[in-house]
Amino acid sequence: MRNVIVTGVTRADLAVVDQLAGLGVATVHEAAGRAGYLGPGLRPIQDGARVAGTAVTALCWPGDNLMIHAAVEQCQAGDLLVVTTTSPCSDGLFGELLATSLVARGVRGLVIETGVRDVSDLRAMGFPVWSAAVSAQGTVKQTPGAVNVPVSVGGQLIRPGDVIVADDDGVVCVPRTQASQVLAAARTRVAKEEQTRQALADGQLGLDLYGLRDKLAARGVEYVAAGDEEG
Amino acid sequence: MRNVIVTGVTRADLAVVDQLAGLGVATVHEAAGRAGYLGPGLRPIQDGARVAGTAVTALCWPGDNLMIHAAVEQCQAGDLLVVTTTSPCSDGLFGELLATSLVARGVRGLVIETGVRDVSDLRAMGFPVWSAAVSAQGTVKQTPGAVNVPVSVGGQLIRPGDVIVADDDGVVCVPRTQASQVLAAARTRVAKEEQTRQALADGQLGLDLYGLRDKLAARGVEYVAAGDEEG
Amino acid sequence: MRNVIVTGVTRADLAVVDQLAGLGVATVHEAAGRAGYLGPGLRPIQDGARVAGTAVTALCWPGDNLMIHAAVEQCQAGDLLVVTTTSPCSDGLFGELLATSLVARGVRGLVIETGVRDVSDLRAMGFPVWSAAVSAQGTVKQTPGAVNVPVSVGGQLIRPGDVIVADDDGVVCVPRTQASQVLAAARTRVAKEEQTRQALADGQLGLDLYGLRDKLAARGVEYVAAGDEEG
Amino acid sequence: MRNVIVTGVTRADLAVVDQLAGLGVATVHEAAGRAGYLGPGLRPIQDGARVAGTAVTALCWPGDNLMIHAAVEQCQAGDLLVVTTTSPCSDGLFGELLATSLVARGVRGLVIETGVRDVSDLRAMGFPVWSAAVSAQGTVKQTPGAVNVPVSVGGQLIRPGDVIVADDDGVVCVPRTQASQVLAAARTRVAKEEQTRQALADGQLGLDLYGLRDKLAARGVEYVAAGDEEG
Amino acid sequence: MRNVIVTGVTRADLAVVDQLAGLGVATVHEAAGRAGYLGPGLRPIQDGARVAGTAVTALCWPGDNLMIHAAVEQCQAGDLLVVTTTSPCSDGLFGELLATSLVARGVRGLVIETGVRDVSDLRAMGFPVWSAAVSAQGTVKQTPGAVNVPVSVGGQLIRPGDVIVADDDGVVCVPRTQASQVLAAARTRVAKEEQTRQALADGQLGLDLYGLRDKLAARGVEYVAAGDEEG
Amino acid sequence: MRNVIVTGVTRADLAVVDQLAGLGVATVHEAAGRAGYLGPGLRPIQDGARVAGTAVTALCWPGDNLMIHAAVEQCQAGDLLVVTTTSPCSDGLFGELLATSLVARGVRGLVIETGVRDVSDLRAMGFPVWSAAVSAQGTVKQTPGAVNVPVSVGGQLIRPGDVIVADDDGVVCVPRTQASQVLAAARTRVAKEEQTRQALADGQLGLDLYGLRDKLAARGVEYVAAGDEEG
Repeated sequence: MRNVIVTGVTRADLAVVDQLAGLGVATVHEAAGRAGYLGPGLRPIQDGARVAGTAVTALCWPGDNLMIHAAVEQCQAGDLLVVTTTSPCSDGLFGELLATSLVARGVRGLVIETGVRDVSDLRAMGFPVWSAAVSAQGTVKQTPGAVNVPVSVGGQLIRPGDVIVADDDGVVCVPRTQASQVLAAARTRVAKEEQTRQALADGQLGLDLYGLRDKLAARGVEYVAAGDEEG
Repeated sequence: MRNVIVTGVTRADLAVVDQLAGLGVATVHEAAGRAGYLGPGLRPIQDGARVAGTAVTALCWPGDNLMIHAAVEQCQAGDLLVVTTTSPCSDGLFGELLATSLVARGVRGLVIETGVRDVSDLRAMGFPVWSAAVSAQGTVKQTPGAVNVPVSVGGQLIRPGDVIVADDDGVVCVPRTQASQVLAAARTRVAKEEQTRQALADGQLGLDLYGLRDKLAARGVEYVAAGDEEG
Repeated sequence: MRNVIVTGVTRADLAVVDQLAGLGVATVHEAAGRAGYLGPGLRPIQDGARVAGTAVTALCWPGDNLMIHAAVEQCQAGDLLVVTTTSPCSDGLFGELLATSLVARGVRGLVIETGVRDVSDLRAMGFPVWSAAVSAQGTVKQTPGAVNVPVSVGGQLIRPGDVIVADDDGVVCVPRTQASQVLAAARTRVAKEEQTRQALADGQLGLDLYGLRDKLAARGVEYVAAGDEEG
Repeated sequence: MRNVIVTGVTRADLAVVDQLAGLGVATVHEAAGRAGYLGPGLRPIQDGARVAGTAVTALCWPGDNLMIHAAVEQCQAGDLLVVTTTSPCSDGLFGELLATSLVARGVRGLVIETGVRDVSDLRAMGFPVWSAAVSAQGTVKQTPGAVNVPVSVGGQLIRPGDVIVADDDGVVCVPRTQASQVLAAARTRVAKEEQTRQALADGQLGLDLYGLRDKLAARGVEYVAAGDEEG
Repeated sequence: MRNVIVTGVTRADLAVVDQLAGLGVATVHEAAGRAGYLGPGLRPIQDGARVAGTAVTALCWPGDNLMIHAAVEQCQAGDLLVVTTTSPCSDGLFGELLATSLVARGVRGLVIETGVRDVSDLRAMGFPVWSAAVSAQGTVKQTPGAVNVPVSVGGQLIRPGDVIVADDDGVVCVPRTQASQVLAAARTRVAKEEQTRQALADGQLGLDLYGLRDKLAARGVEYVAAGDEEG
Repeated sequence: MRNVIVTGVTRADLAVVDQLAGLGVATVHEAAGRAGYLGPGLRPIQDGARVAGTAVTALCWPGDNLMIHAAVEQCQAGDLLVVTTTSPCSDGLFGELLATSLVARGVRGLVIETGVRDVSDLRAMGFPVWSAAVSAQGTVKQTPGAVNVPVSVGGQLIRPGDVIVADDDGVVCVPRTQASQVLAAARTRVAKEEQTRQALADGQLGLDLYGLRDKLAARGVEYVAAGDEEG
């Protein structure tokens, strides 16, 4: 790991980012070709928040939040801070004081692959957080890392400036260069789903709407009356 | 695994099912002889829901929800859908569109050993879900499985038509053939607990109410004043 | 393990205990020299509770809550019950009836390294609980253990009479003999943090407030413009 | 749970069982329609063992091995003991003395969803074991359970008398009534694989042998030269 | 946590320690009243080693092995080094160079609640290690901790100078002050087990040897012929 | 995810790759600036293997190994196949037949973030494997993925053509463009460690060799005689 702080990162267009937020994580993930989801391990500390922002990344040493302080200075309005560690860690690398600093810079939220603390305060502030743990365990500021380098979180590559969308379903990353195209695909999907929703509410079946009956038959699925299963 | 969809399953009596719902998971589990609990890994995505229904089961391939669509058609009013996979999986096999379909059929809820998504929407709809994870990760519809075969979820065998009770404490399964007898035992238990609760609130001790003092003595438990422990 | 129930334990001063509660887990943990935190595995079953009490400890056999009943009798007003097992266990060793008993004795809450059940009732009662799991799985009362012996929970040693502080961030233990000194340190910290908070809200950076720029340089961290990283 | 010891269980035919052992877990699992595998959580304590036997099942309370002692009496030559607990447990419910007893009865091995101990001795005895953990943690003999009832282990239902096959890949269960048919399918599979193996060793590709090129194309997979991926 | 290095620790008598090694972990744990076992999470990196030594403890920061270097100096012949971290960590805090240093001082082995690396070399050296993980992840030497303070590992309290016994079954700690008494109890147990082993090998049953038939009956366990279970 | 198979990937120089193999994972990871280690979750299925190769990557759907078959064709002598899935999966996506195919192409080993099966056969063939699990669970060939795209495994980014080094300590990835420079740094490190090893074997202390005494003092670590700790 080179110990660098990369400045002047190119961000995704905030106009696109804001529209992606409105569509939510599951839709954006599907529109991106079922890609970019950071997995079930990153959970919101609050209910009902839905945000999107441009990624500023921080790579920290376990038990050490030195590089988060360095990352704050690289943040600007519209960003969302993404933090991970060089090896698994559950400590509370982030709390209410750092959130105060981020709010002052217009940062929209935090995604962190370790723990956070002061969660009562964070909820009261309305600063949204997705984390792998809640932990009051304090940290030191001793060992260097990196800011705004590509990081791997939840099995997904995140590059500085990428779009991060987060809600109750978790977190998804859309590469900066694909943001507009994913937005268009997501809108198409939403329109189509609205039709499907109405049909399902009216009692039509996905088996018919999605043409699955033939698929079941082609794969050898048989209908058997109860009592005849073992026959 | 035979790829079958079993139709015409015999369900437990809904009159009994509804009364079991009112008694809650912990009481029903105790009344069933401390059996049938699906373990701490299945958690509600909402607070305060308490439901019971008759099991329709779906066995899916990991990353694939084809058989959930097939299962929907087998559901009727009073059912509760139970989904698992042939091997461990955390993907979001179920979301708001499938819930719309289930609501249209009078299904009371979902128990799923993988992930779910659209949790904000599911909460807003009031469709109760117990799952092993929340995950936006999308799925395909390619590989067959089975509907209404016995499945093993959380270390418990669930047969189609069995009673599923779920609340904030998790999920319990009562075999269809034992439903009435468990209901009777649960009612007896509730009545007895009401007496115990009053006694405990008045300051009586479980040590006396349950006759545990002799048991402690018989098992060699000694009372020692602080400071004399190591003596 | 000796099967003993230790009586007459010396508790920390409740006046100090109450003031520690007001300061919260993260602050108390820091004031104690970043020690005593029970880790991210112990989570509250409710939001927003913040309590402190003096520890009464119970060491149980897995799947068995006999010693919790014995521990209840050793509890007095101001205590907080701490329960663990001799080996890992997720069963629901504690529920609403035991809570009723503890409330009658003035106990302030429960920290338990296994599961709890009746969580709806516990929330409705306002009896705060931190646990490793929620589980309806019932237990027996057969095998002896110990009450008011030192126990290890979440990697921390807890002695009877120690101070336990718990809130949304989890649980911290302060040794009885250090309670006053930790309280003083925590107050100093709170005062200092208030100043820092204001500075950060005004847009000052932690890099400057904590003097981290020199540290970054001394550790070889370089600033690089985007596009020049790989150069 | 009813506290019963079921006697006189009908076993699968040992002649079939012995032939299944020779074919190994992966082959038998495939021949059974990709069913019955107990998952990656059950691991051998030794290398290279490959056995099959007829299941005698024991369902124990966590931290308690009373029912294993009851199960020993129900074992006969050709059996393989299968043990689980009513809730998750890692304790060492089984050790060298119980193995001595099983060897005296002609039992072929142990599958246990908790821990085992005395593993050096078990290896030296040549008594094969598949377990979820190794743990020296001792147990009591206090709480009843059941012997020779259906149990759920690793997400699979095991009925007394079923065939258990175990080797370095883990453990698979074949229902007693399907043993002969699975054996036939497994032999067919082995013969076919031998041909495939030779073709692959000669440099032919699975893409061609299994006809996957069309499938890839049909699913929209494109070949792209390196450097043109992002174009 | 006070940052101290405690010198001149009183060790358990090595004559007793050496005899405990010969008896093994499971036996010593039982003789200690089923206490002191560090759980299934600490596994040997080699097969067949069985050692005992007196504990020197090191408490490190995650990702940092500074205090292991300080601990080496406190080690003397007959010791066994015990290492943990202030919060969960899997990094490779220990490798072949540190082992070389410990061998030079007559240290008998390592128990570490994080990862180790250079495991090929450690095996080749014959230096026995029990760890929670194998990890090549390197560490820094920046943040202080403590040496020879009481630590909690695997849910057990270990005091400097206590006896550590480790073999293929894991690790057990015997308090220094109880070492002789545990040794005596262990010998008695071994003698008794030898008799039991012979009886079991001769085909007698634990049900009879341990008097369990009455216990089963008293707890309501019934014998039922197969086919009559559900009747 | 775009469903592509990238051909004609540029590999790292095999002459460099072979020399990195000889140096081992821990050394290479340190020489790379403590970067690139895939974590403790990827474990060898055999003891003592040490290999290096150039990465061919396959990204599969859970429960589906279609893309491994596509990846085989892209492999050439000196490669090492790296497989992961779009979401967590433990199934046995790889077995002895695929290994036969890879051996025929001169592939040096497999790193896979799911399970493998036929481990007895793989060991007998001498084909080295590092995996997240051993599982006999079979898979289908239905859903597309990608070959030779960048993948994230164990929190590390792996690009096609990068160097993979694997031994008993796990797996490390060195970016193709840094291979020579890391090799040089690793050799320097080995030479230096040889001197250190000799000094440590002679009884010198790391405290002195690494100049840690001042560091301990500067960080406030105090030496205290036993018995005076609490004073």
